[in-house]
Amino acid sequence: MTVRQLLEAHPRPTIGDLDALVRCIEACGECAASCTGCADADLGESDVRDMVRCVRLCLDCADICDSTRRIVARQTEPDLGVIRAALEACVAACRACQTECRHHAEHHEHCRICAEVCGRCEQACKDLLAALG
Amino acid sequence: MTVRQLLEAHPRPTIGDLDALVRCIEACGECAASCTGCADADLGESDVRDMVRCVRLCLDCADICDSTRRIVARQTEPDLGVIRAALEACVAACRACQTECRHHAEHHEHCRICAEVCGRCEQACKDLLAALG
Amino acid sequence: MTVRQLLEAHPRPTIGDLDALVRCIEACGECAASCTGCADADLGESDVRDMVRCVRLCLDCADICDSTRRIVARQTEPDLGVIRAALEACVAACRACQTECRHHAEHHEHCRICAEVCGRCEQACKDLLAALG
Amino acid sequence: MTVRQLLEAHPRPTIGDLDALVRCIEACGECAASCTGCADADLGESDVRDMVRCVRLCLDCADICDSTRRIVARQTEPDLGVIRAALEACVAACRACQTECRHHAEHHEHCRICAEVCGRCEQACKDLLAALG
Repeated sequence: MTVRQLLEAHPRPTIGDLDALVRCIEACGECAASCTGCADADLGESDVRDMVRCVRLCLDCADICDSTRRIVARQTEPDLGVIRAALEACVAACRACQTECRHHAEHHEHCRICAEVCGRCEQACKDLLAALG
Repeated sequence: MTVRQLLEAHPRPTIGDLDALVRCIEACGECAASCTGCADADLGESDVRDMVRCVRLCLDCADICDSTRRIVARQTEPDLGVIRAALEACVAACRACQTECRHHAEHHEHCRICAEVCGRCEQACKDLLAALG
Repeated sequence: MTVRQLLEAHPRPTIGDLDALVRCIEACGECAASCTGCADADLGESDVRDMVRCVRLCLDCADICDSTRRIVARQTEPDLGVIRAALEACVAACRACQTECRHHAEHHEHCRICAEVCGRCEQACKDLLAALG
Repeated sequence: MTVRQLLEAHPRPTIGDLDALVRCIEACGECAASCTGCADADLGESDVRDMVRCVRLCLDCADICDSTRRIVARQTEPDLGVIRAALEACVAACRACQTECRHHAEHHEHCRICAEVCGRCEQACKDLLAALG
């Protein structure tokens, strides 16, 4: 995978565990795309009035996943306090979005998929937090 | 100001204190622009090798300020846990970036300016956190 | 203003016209904030089903304004083809969003404000395009 | 893949060709991650003074790829003029970044990888432009 190859070609040692880092970057990218798509699919549903909370939490989650993906991907001169705080914000956003998407999983397949993706991203962020020590 | 007018025209009441919210949105926007500009000015300096940490922390801070600005600006169906975690990440990023920029403030005017802007943004995020209770 | 001070402190000369550049950076920042706020206010309206196109075009416009603001703010080693293409995308997004917001300006004050802000941003991008030659 | 599943679960028909759309969304996500990583790796190199143009074009490309990825992923109430302009900006950014990264491909493996990824993203954007008609 490209992300792993790039990190292996980086001139400075990777922070923490390479496997945990690659999983986190990929999970944040997948979750940002999924939340952008789920918010948009919500807007296209005939019951959009019932999906307003889902749209909003998906937008928040996409924004935080995109910024967290960039921050953890950077290996040069890291500030661990910033990285930890970004990962914790991402955990909070993924959890809130997953909870809301699960409420709609039975009648909207995109919400079922998005809840799963949020769950994987939350776990990947927690694993990287643990690996950072 | 446009941000205040928009929030006053919002169909649902603003979360917490309107003044604190407007200041936070504006401070995050100013800080994102300042950090983008400072990182770029660092790249143009002849001593760029000494500015690498400053570039990196400015990039992190710009990313977090942009996502935080979007998240706190949303008033519909908020999740206070997500908003607080985003604000806390923004405080951490502003503080780290400000500390680094201050080290270069005497020889790079853009770092002096950026350190001040980061300080204002850190305070605005803390004030909004306090107002959210 | 901070953006102007930062650009004046930049070690390399500003691309094109400083006034046009400052206005464009500030207009993109204002428009990104306004579109984020208008999309969110739309979601809070009781007629949200009629506002779906407005939400969508506001989200597109906020995304393009944020990336354009960052790209035009960078003065080091610019590629004018990239800058022009970003500005042209921003013009297209602002125009589409403005047209849609205007349709709702009479019954939603946030749309009236947002249409005005989009119009100013479209003009600021066109002026910078003209100044780049 | 998640992106394809989400688009297949969308309540409104996909714009243009589903295969071209999925490839474009995935290529933009890969390119944003690669450019973020390459810019950061450049900052960690001992010859960072020679990599300044590469850092800058990677940052531009990451910003445009992230916004383009979001815009093309949205299927509800699209404005084709906005989508085309975003894709054209992405083509310009990928081409400029690829050209610069290729200059460094022999001595920096991350630039060799990033140039390839930019080339794939440029092609995926062109293919989606063609599919949109």
